[in-house]
Amino acid sequence: MKITRIVDTVVPIRSEIRNAYISFSEMTASAVAVHTDAKCDGKPLVGYGFNSNGRYSQSGILRDRMIPRLMAADDVSLCDEAGMLDPSRCWRVMMSNEKPGGHGERSVAVGVLDMAIWDAVAKAEGKPLYRLLADRYNEGRYQEEVYVYAAGGYYYPGKEIEGLLEEMRRYLDLGYSTVKIKIGGAPLHEDQRRIEAVLRILGPGQDLAVDANGRFDHATALEYAEALNDYSLKWYEEPCEPLDYEIHADVAQASRNPIATGENIFSVPDALNLIRYARLVPERDFLQFDPALSYGVVEYLRILEMLRAHGWSPRRCIPHGGHQMALHVASGLGLHGNESYPGVFQPFGGFADGMPVHNSRVRLPDAPGIGIEQKQNLYEVFREL
Amino acid sequence: MKITRIVDTVVPIRSEIRNAYISFSEMTASAVAVHTDAKCDGKPLVGYGFNSNGRYSQSGILRDRMIPRLMAADDVSLCDEAGMLDPSRCWRVMMSNEKPGGHGERSVAVGVLDMAIWDAVAKAEGKPLYRLLADRYNEGRYQEEVYVYAAGGYYYPGKEIEGLLEEMRRYLDLGYSTVKIKIGGAPLHEDQRRIEAVLRILGPGQDLAVDANGRFDHATALEYAEALNDYSLKWYEEPCEPLDYEIHADVAQASRNPIATGENIFSVPDALNLIRYARLVPERDFLQFDPALSYGVVEYLRILEMLRAHGWSPRRCIPHGGHQMALHVASGLGLHGNESYPGVFQPFGGFADGMPVHNSRVRLPDAPGIGIEQKQNLYEVFREL
Repeated sequence: MKITRIVDTVVPIRSEIRNAYISFSEMTASAVAVHTDAKCDGKPLVGYGFNSNGRYSQSGILRDRMIPRLMAADDVSLCDEAGMLDPSRCWRVMMSNEKPGGHGERSVAVGVLDMAIWDAVAKAEGKPLYRLLADRYNEGRYQEEVYVYAAGGYYYPGKEIEGLLEEMRRYLDLGYSTVKIKIGGAPLHEDQRRIEAVLRILGPGQDLAVDANGRFDHATALEYAEALNDYSLKWYEEPCEPLDYEIHADVAQASRNPIATGENIFSVPDALNLIRYARLVPERDFLQFDPALSYGVVEYLRILEMLRAHGWSPRRCIPHGGHQMALHVASGLGLHGNESYPGVFQPFGGFADGMPVHNSRVRLPDAPGIGIEQKQNLYEVFREL
Repeated sequence: MKITRIVDTVVPIRSEIRNAYISFSEMTASAVAVHTDAKCDGKPLVGYGFNSNGRYSQSGILRDRMIPRLMAADDVSLCDEAGMLDPSRCWRVMMSNEKPGGHGERSVAVGVLDMAIWDAVAKAEGKPLYRLLADRYNEGRYQEEVYVYAAGGYYYPGKEIEGLLEEMRRYLDLGYSTVKIKIGGAPLHEDQRRIEAVLRILGPGQDLAVDANGRFDHATALEYAEALNDYSLKWYEEPCEPLDYEIHADVAQASRNPIATGENIFSVPDALNLIRYARLVPERDFLQFDPALSYGVVEYLRILEMLRAHGWSPRRCIPHGGHQMALHVASGLGLHGNESYPGVFQPFGGFADGMPVHNSRVRLPDAPGIGIEQKQNLYEVFREL
């Protein structure tokens, strides 16, 4: 199996939403197609990949650093003994001549290509990616349905509570039992009113998570932690600067609710520092590293290995991003679940068409690969590549 | 003063060298020109910036994220009360809608533009940048000459010691009294032979630093620290993975030589973690954050403030990169000195033409701005922008 051509393009993922930190109105995503000389159902086998939301415009790094290295490498460097593309070897080729440290945007460029390579390998083996991951790394065990939660809960200037509850009811009607709302975009007492309003419409077995998007300083992060102790929440997410482990440690101690963080941590060394210094609680807290932003599945496997060595189960992981790739990882590697942004970040957000959410759980398609072809609006992007 | 146009280009900085970690043969740099409506000596005032070596191909991030934000911003957002471009405000505009965490490549894109903005402001005030920085942030104090050391000391397969000594003698003849060589590209006993050979040709007042480029694992970093204790070195640089603070802490304790690190740390939050967890010694060790790779001078000023709050003097800083920008920062903000790569990473490496090194110290030109116009081969790159 040889890579014959790699094509990339940039696609808008405009969304009119904003969180406590940023607006998403200018955002794009890179989409790549890795063409191979293999066949699948008589047609040329092509692997597809894209990046998750949050970081974008990696085209320079893709075109001048990562793609040329893959195209210049020989088969022995990219393939296993059986001649099949080997994602770990491809990863090593992409990262050759890269300096250590500074994990942010490069991790996204590698993640996009890593996704396309896994898609190609799973197609070549005729398996959906979650089966491939389960067979290779999880003794064949996978989750037929994956827990997903609905992330949203934006601010609605002028019709604050009413707009929020309308959005929450939409998610509950879609079949989600966990919903997540933003906090930190208003003073604490207003956020408390919003939280209490949502809690009142939740029934048994339904729960609420809150997300500060890394906005709070030390004192505010603690003030919120204590105020949130009045409620029983699914989690309190990104209370502070994602790299400030001292604040995390204080918040983790002050909070009776689980802490969730990790969407802005993009590598094994950074994840290791979070585990070493932030004093998160392995029996209680959640880790949200997003494989598509963090050097792909090859690095995610290393993160899981590092976590196990520090007493953390894969069951504590719920990736950020709300995309199909992380859903496969969650199913095949035994994670707790996956994020979902119903209806936004299109066409990249969301899962395969015709896969409804029941009791906050969603099934994966049986088609080989990631199933990008099973999501019509997403496949439109790739069809021309 | 208004920004009227920003032009960027990509220029090779090919170099046939390699260190223990990477080869530099494919590397490029971005160069930007920030055009303004102001005049300087009757000609339009243009600020120039470029990135330091190590990370490259930021064109996507520059063109799709940073430059459009600067061009879309109004005067109030970019200028101070006197109507002069304000680097801090420009920085805030560039970083609007950026998520926290993940400091790696974005920090380089911002650094390139930050450099051009400082160049424009210094030209508008008719001062060399080091004077502007000294006047604004250092009570007018600056260093007329800045300590620089010669970084190199590569491996010469086939003529190992002979090639190395030839290179070292060239640096000493150029006027450097501190020279730095690579280690970790050969077994310890060979590196010891190389170190001892260089030490033998050094006279009184001359010294040697060694650089492992982040290559060693925990055990090897410690093994080298102990072996290097047999010599009196200027420093032992980047012993290990730049984000692994536990290894740093052990090495810092085992070493009698100063430790130097920081070239792969690109932001205040990462620098703060290094200071909090790596147990470096403020009276002994050196910090090598490179402003051109790390969100520019605006962020570097914040790093110095954070260092002061933790008991570190600016005198412990010697930026990585060997470029003119860091030389101005070293002079105007009272740093220990600056790196220099004699003859490599051209045209971006090195200082103004006709500024010889005496006793490992170099002067800065009096021309307004950074002095890119005072370095002929570098100005060739910018003349057309």
